[in-house]
Amino acid sequence: MTTVHGLIALGAAFAVGVAAIGAGIGQGIASGKAFESIARQPEVSGTIRTLLFIALAFMETLTIYGLLIAFMLVGKIG
Amino acid sequence: MTTVHGLIALGAAFAVGVAAIGAGIGQGIASGKAFESIARQPEVSGTIRTLLFIALAFMETLTIYGLLIAFMLVGKIG
Amino acid sequence: MTTVHGLIALGAAFAVGVAAIGAGIGQGIASGKAFESIARQPEVSGTIRTLLFIALAFMETLTIYGLLIAFMLVGKIG
Amino acid sequence: MTTVHGLIALGAAFAVGVAAIGAGIGQGIASGKAFESIARQPEVSGTIRTLLFIALAFMETLTIYGLLIAFMLVGKIG
Amino acid sequence: MTTVHGLIALGAAFAVGVAAIGAGIGQGIASGKAFESIARQPEVSGTIRTLLFIALAFMETLTIYGLLIAFMLVGKIG
Amino acid sequence: MTTVHGLIALGAAFAVGVAAIGAGIGQGIASGKAFESIARQPEVSGTIRTLLFIALAFMETLTIYGLLIAFMLVGKIG
Amino acid sequence: MTTVHGLIALGAAFAVGVAAIGAGIGQGIASGKAFESIARQPEVSGTIRTLLFIALAFMETLTIYGLLIAFMLVGKIG
Amino acid sequence: MTTVHGLIALGAAFAVGVAAIGAGIGQGIASGKAFESIARQPEVSGTIRTLLFIALAFMETLTIYGLLIAFMLVGKIG
Amino acid sequence: MTTVHGLIALGAAFAVGVAAIGAGIGQGIASGKAFESIARQPEVSGTIRTLLFIALAFMETLTIYGLLIAFMLVGKIG
Amino acid sequence: MTTVHGLIALGAAFAVGVAAIGAGIGQGIASGKAFESIARQPEVSGTIRTLLFIALAFMETLTIYGLLIAFMLVGKIG
Amino acid sequence: MTTVHGLIALGAAFAVGVAAIGAGIGQGIASGKAFESIARQPEVSGTIRTLLFIALAFMETLTIYGLLIAFMLVGKIG
Amino acid sequence: MTTVHGLIALGAAFAVGVAAIGAGIGQGIASGKAFESIARQPEVSGTIRTLLFIALAFMETLTIYGLLIAFMLVGKIG
Amino acid sequence: MTTVHGLIALGAAFAVGVAAIGAGIGQGIASGKAFESIARQPEVSGTIRTLLFIALAFMETLTIYGLLIAFMLVGKIG
Amino acid sequence: MTTVHGLIALGAAFAVGVAAIGAGIGQGIASGKAFESIARQPEVSGTIRTLLFIALAFMETLTIYGLLIAFMLVGKIG
Repeated sequence: MTTVHGLIALGAAFAVGVAAIGAGIGQGIASGKAFESIARQPEVSGTIRTLLFIALAFMETLTIYGLLIAFMLVGKIG
Repeated sequence: MTTVHGLIALGAAFAVGVAAIGAGIGQGIASGKAFESIARQPEVSGTIRTLLFIALAFMETLTIYGLLIAFMLVGKIG
Repeated sequence: MTTVHGLIALGAAFAVGVAAIGAGIGQGIASGKAFESIARQPEVSGTIRTLLFIALAFMETLTIYGLLIAFMLVGKIG
Repeated sequence: MTTVHGLIALGAAFAVGVAAIGAGIGQGIASGKAFESIARQPEVSGTIRTLLFIALAFMETLTIYGLLIAFMLVGKIG
Repeated sequence: MTTVHGLIALGAAFAVGVAAIGAGIGQGIASGKAFESIARQPEVSGTIRTLLFIALAFMETLTIYGLLIAFMLVGKIG
Repeated sequence: MTTVHGLIALGAAFAVGVAAIGAGIGQGIASGKAFESIARQPEVSGTIRTLLFIALAFMETLTIYGLLIAFMLVGKIG
Repeated sequence: MTTVHGLIALGAAFAVGVAAIGAGIGQGIASGKAFESIARQPEVSGTIRTLLFIALAFMETLTIYGLLIAFMLVGKIG
Repeated sequence: MTTVHGLIALGAAFAVGVAAIGAGIGQGIASGKAFESIARQPEVSGTIRTLLFIALAFMETLTIYGLLIAFMLVGKIG
Repeated sequence: MTTVHGLIALGAAFAVGVAAIGAGIGQGIASGKAFESIARQPEVSGTIRTLLFIALAFMETLTIYGLLIAFMLVGKIG
Repeated sequence: MTTVHGLIALGAAFAVGVAAIGAGIGQGIASGKAFESIARQPEVSGTIRTLLFIALAFMETLTIYGLLIAFMLVGKIG
Repeated sequence: MTTVHGLIALGAAFAVGVAAIGAGIGQGIASGKAFESIARQPEVSGTIRTLLFIALAFMETLTIYGLLIAFMLVGKIG
Repeated sequence: MTTVHGLIALGAAFAVGVAAIGAGIGQGIASGKAFESIARQPEVSGTIRTLLFIALAFMETLTIYGLLIAFMLVGKIG
Repeated sequence: MTTVHGLIALGAAFAVGVAAIGAGIGQGIASGKAFESIARQPEVSGTIRTLLFIALAFMETLTIYGLLIAFMLVGKIG
Repeated sequence: MTTVHGLIALGAAFAVGVAAIGAGIGQGIASGKAFESIARQPEVSGTIRTLLFIALAFMETLTIYGLLIAFMLVGKIG
């Protein structure tokens, strides 16, 4: 293995690590607000729960894009 | 493989990782506010749900641009 | 390929990644406030929806400028 | 191509990427407040819509300056 | 072992460390808001508890993606 | 072209990119507050509109200073 | 020992140090909100205490992932 | 031209770019508050307008200092 | 001693120093909120005191993980 | 000219650029609050105007210190 | 003395300096909230004083861990 | 002149530039709050004016310390 | 003197400079809240004054730890 | 003079510059809150004035520690 593999490994780590920052904070804000909304208006808890899952899935996807690139890069290290 | 492939790998990781930060935080804020709005005014939940999906899609697109560049760069590593 | 192609790849990634941060956060704030406004005053939801789409398009454009430069740079790697 | 072209490419990417951060956040704040104001006082929605477009155009211009420099720099890579 | 193993080790550390920042803050926000909501509306504590566990699991997953890449990279050091 | 031209290109990009951050955020805050004020007190909308244009022009000027230096530097690359 | 061991040591330190930032802030927010909620609604203190312990454990786990990678890396220094 | 000219160009760009960040944000805050104040108390709009122009001029001056140094440095590149 | 010992020393310092940032801020938030809660509802001060100690211990542990790695690394300097 | 002149030029730019950040934000906060105060209590506008000019002058001085050092450094480039 | 001693000195400084950031801010928040709570509910000032001292001691300990590592590293410079 | 003079020039610029950040923001906060306080309670404007001047002087002194070191360093460039 | 003395000097400066950031902000928050509390409840000013001095001393100590390490490092430059 | 003197000069500048950031912000917060408190409760202005001077002196001391180290380092440049 040469230095290039080290740089590729750094890249894989960067892709998955940094992509997780925004998604983590975003999921925290979204689910926190969802709990508040359910507490204020319990009769819409069904609608909000469904939307929360969709929103969490959207944000999870952002990190999965990073994970995808990370897997492709790890595959290059061989 | 030479050092240039390492730099390209770093670039691919940077594109998808950093592009996910803003989208993650933005989706969190947008969906959080959507839950609040539905809880305050349940009868507009239909309108807001549609707009939320459109807004989430807009923000998801920002990261997909980064993913696109990342795929093109990973393709250069060969 | 030489080191210069690596630097160009980093540039392409930087252009699209960083340009997406501000747009992502901005779209989140704008659409979040739009949901709130519709919930407070449902009868203006038509006006706000139109303005929201225009505002989202303006912000999307900022990242597309970055994507444009990124494509031009990726084209230089050859 | 030599290393200098790589540095010029980084410059082009920096100009358009960084210039988009402030404009993105600013457009988000401005349009978010515009929606709120229309919801509070629907009868001024005409005035605010016009001013919002002017403000968005001003902020878009900031990134276009960056894009301009980026095009000039990309033109130097040849 | 050569320098490349050092870079891979840095990558493994980066992946798990940085991925934990966003998840940590997000879990804190989400669970804090959950406690508040239960205190305001004790009769929805069941719904919120279930949603909290799901949200915490989503966020935990983000760091586990980072851990996964970290394990794969540590496995390359040999 | 030698490395010095690369550094000058980076400088041109830095001047216009960074100068646009503050102006973008500032213009967003100023125009957002202007919309709010017009909504609260519609009869002063004329005064505020004039002042908003002057304020936006002041902030635009800050980035134009950066653009000016960027043009002068791009002219040195030849 | 060669430079590679120094880089591995830096990696071990990075993994455990950075992973502790988010968890620390998150645990602070979560437990602070838990105290507030108990003070507002003392009769749900049992439910909140249980949930607080679960949430703290989730966040502690994030740092333990970093500690795990750190131990594995320290073990490589030999 | 030698590397020193590149460093001087970076300096010129840094002086004008960074000096514009604070002034941009400051002008945005100041003019935003001025609009709010005029909306609350329309009869003092004359006093506030005069003070706003003076304050904007003070802040503009900060960036002009940076522009001045930038011109002097660009003049050294020759 | 060679450069590697210097890097290990930097690692030990990083582990304990950075791990203390989050814990410090978190403990400050948690204990501040605990005081507020006791002042609002003095009769739950017993419950909150116990929970505060547990929360402080959880956060202290995060830094102790960093200290542990730091000790292991200092032991490698010999 | 040698590299040392480039470093001195960077220093001059740093002194004036960074010194302008704090002053710009500070002047914005101070004048914004001054406008608010005049709007709330128009009869003290004389006192506040005088104090505002003194405060702006104090903050302007901070950047002038940086400008002074910058001039002295530019004078060394020769 | 060789470069390694310089790196160890930097490490000692980093450990104690960075560890003091979080503790300083945390102690400020905690004691500020303690004063507020005593002012609102003077009759619990005894309980809060005791808890404040314990909390300050916990946070002080975080920096003392950094000081401990710093002493061990300074001892290696010899 | 040799590279050492360039580093000393950077030091002088750093001392005065960075020292001005905190003082600028601090003076802005302090004078802004002073204006507010005078507007709320005009009869204490004398006391507050005196205290404001003392506080501004304290903060100005912080930057003058930096200026002092900067002058001493500029004097070493010769 | 060799480069190692320069690194030790940087270390001494880092220890005392960075350790002062957190303490400065913390002391500002703590004393600001103390003034507020005394203004709200003048009869507890004795208790709060004593606690403020203790809290300020705790925070001052954090910087003194940094100063201690700085003195030890300066003593090594000889 | 050799490069080591340049590093020592950077150290002196760092010590005094960075130490002034926290103190500047802290003094601004503390004196701002003091003005507010005096405006709310003019009869405690004596107590608060005394405490403000003590608090400002505590924070000034933090920067003086940095100045002290800076003087000691400047003395080493010779």
